Amino acid sequence: MKNFADKLIERVNERQNPSIVGLDPTFANLPEPLKNEQKAKYGENFTAIGASLFEFNRRIIDAVAGTVPIVKPQIAFYEKYGLAGMRAFANTCKYARKRKLLVIGDVKRNDIGSTAQAYSEAYLGCADFWGGTKKKCYDLDAVTVNAYLGTDGVKPFVDDVKAHGKGIFVLVKTSNKSSGEFQDVVTADNRPNFMMMAANVAKWGESTDGKSGYSSVGAVVGATFPQQAVDIRQALPKAIFLVPGYGAQGGTAADVVPCFNKDGYGAVVNSSRGIIFAYQGDKFKAAPEEFDKAAANAALGMKEDIARALREANIHPWK
Amino acid sequence: MKNFADKLIERVNERQNPSIVGLDPTFANLPEPLKNEQKAKYGENFTAIGASLFEFNRRIIDAVAGTVPIVKPQIAFYEKYGLAGMRAFANTCKYARKRKLLVIGDVKRNDIGSTAQAYSEAYLGCADFWGGTKKKCYDLDAVTVNAYLGTDGVKPFVDDVKAHGKGIFVLVKTSNKSSGEFQDVVTADNRPNFMMMAANVAKWGESTDGKSGYSSVGAVVGATFPQQAVDIRQALPKAIFLVPGYGAQGGTAADVVPCFNKDGYGAVVNSSRGIIFAYQGDKFKAAPEEFDKAAANAALGMKEDIARALREANIHPWK
Repeated sequence: MKNFADKLIERVNERQNPSIVGLDPTFANLPEPLKNEQKAKYGENFTAIGASLFEFNRRIIDAVAGTVPIVKPQIAFYEKYGLAGMRAFANTCKYARKRKLLVIGDVKRNDIGSTAQAYSEAYLGCADFWGGTKKKCYDLDAVTVNAYLGTDGVKPFVDDVKAHGKGIFVLVKTSNKSSGEFQDVVTADNRPNFMMMAANVAKWGESTDGKSGYSSVGAVVGATFPQQAVDIRQALPKAIFLVPGYGAQGGTAADVVPCFNKDGYGAVVNSSRGIIFAYQGDKFKAAPEEFDKAAANAALGMKEDIARALREANIHPWK
Repeated sequence: MKNFADKLIERVNERQNPSIVGLDPTFANLPEPLKNEQKAKYGENFTAIGASLFEFNRRIIDAVAGTVPIVKPQIAFYEKYGLAGMRAFANTCKYARKRKLLVIGDVKRNDIGSTAQAYSEAYLGCADFWGGTKKKCYDLDAVTVNAYLGTDGVKPFVDDVKAHGKGIFVLVKTSNKSSGEFQDVVTADNRPNFMMMAANVAKWGESTDGKSGYSSVGAVVGATFPQQAVDIRQALPKAIFLVPGYGAQGGTAADVVPCFNKDGYGAVVNSSRGIIFAYQGDKFKAAPEEFDKAAANAALGMKEDIARALREANIHPWK
């Protein structure tokens, strides 16, 4: 069984690219022709919306699978369409794995021990089945976890990380504007809350290292806070950072550089809207029918953008 | 449109009972006869597990609907069985509302603004539908929210609280053992993190008060930390506390008293395993076929237990 961190680095090497395509298919932004096709098939209902989400993702995945190593479906965009949405989520994850992409489920789950275990069983491990056996459900490669509840709520995930070669990314410093309200508050021992969280991530990651030296318990660190990233990088030399906030949220390629180690590893950078809805933007504008070509071009653009910023910082990725 | 806090208080008054039954149907603990019935119908698969979860909940709901005002399905126990599990979740919520119970979805969702909005649309509000219209999905009465990401991640929920007469309960001080690791850390201005979170809850709750004077933005405060509950109660006089940790997790009726205001309102107390799996315990032990009767008795026992503790503290509920 391969360690998650090693798998991730292997895929990054194969593609010479540390980017993630975030699969956040806001229904309103999906191309009209694609939606109309599904509506004609199923009617004006949730089923047709779910089918639209999957069909959109399938074409995005086909378009970027040669360029990027990882996709990150944000589950909220599927949950909001109930069972039809969750069917699209399941089908998307399955299809992405078939296309040899790693799948990070952006679920930000969190709860007390027994409940955290149920979440971990859903996405990483396996659940109680008939006749005392166990069965896998979504079987993703990794998920994001919110650790406000402390070790109890993280340990079940770490157990599955170890048992099944999976990964987790714990929210440390998020990319949104108000992330500082809570995460930046300085504690009595003179460090911000996010640095305390980073220290916990190091502890939770013990005994999850791969041959690469990287840990399978990573951290979410927003591209929008490059100064804080410097401190977190120093505190967590072995953690892989999942970096949201590049592109549509305002983070630049230069902003993500502090998330990487000098060896060129240690970070994977996500872009969602900037890639999947590139057809609506200025730089990669395309007809709605060609949304996937626009996404392919945007993914290539992002790959080059990050590689350039790393080279300019004298970081020379990847083997 | 009725305010959520007012609806909750009305239901508590009707039942003379501030308890919540937590619907956390761990598959391994479901009664064998019930499981075998579903297996005979559908085979040894997830469909039969989902059907077992719903059938179990349906009978629990029928058994407790005359005693308790609220149920709280913990979504992790459904998510772990994929689509079949989520079908059970949806059917459970629908059935509970049909039986005039309020439904609090224990989902602990959290994300950046646009994604938090998608979650809120899933559970409280409505999502983009065909032809520019909107459509409700789960349409629960309230959900739990984790606010590690700050105001951005909470505001979309608060907007739906106001627009649709819904409620949220923000994690302030959770019931699990390791909750102190992060939540109790004292900040430079000499208050624990959970008190800072409480101050935010007050702010987010502005303009969500009902005629009762209570706010529709509540707080999750564990029964297992009665000392901390005193401080939070003082900081949040108008918030309704959702109190987990009573029963199986070790909290007693006396422990939950500090969560109430002197008027007898301001808290609703959850028990999950202690009620739904009462048939396996000592006090309300019953044959597997009679798990629902055991649950009914346990729910009555809990109602009396809490009422007694409140009376002993010279609190005289409820109108």
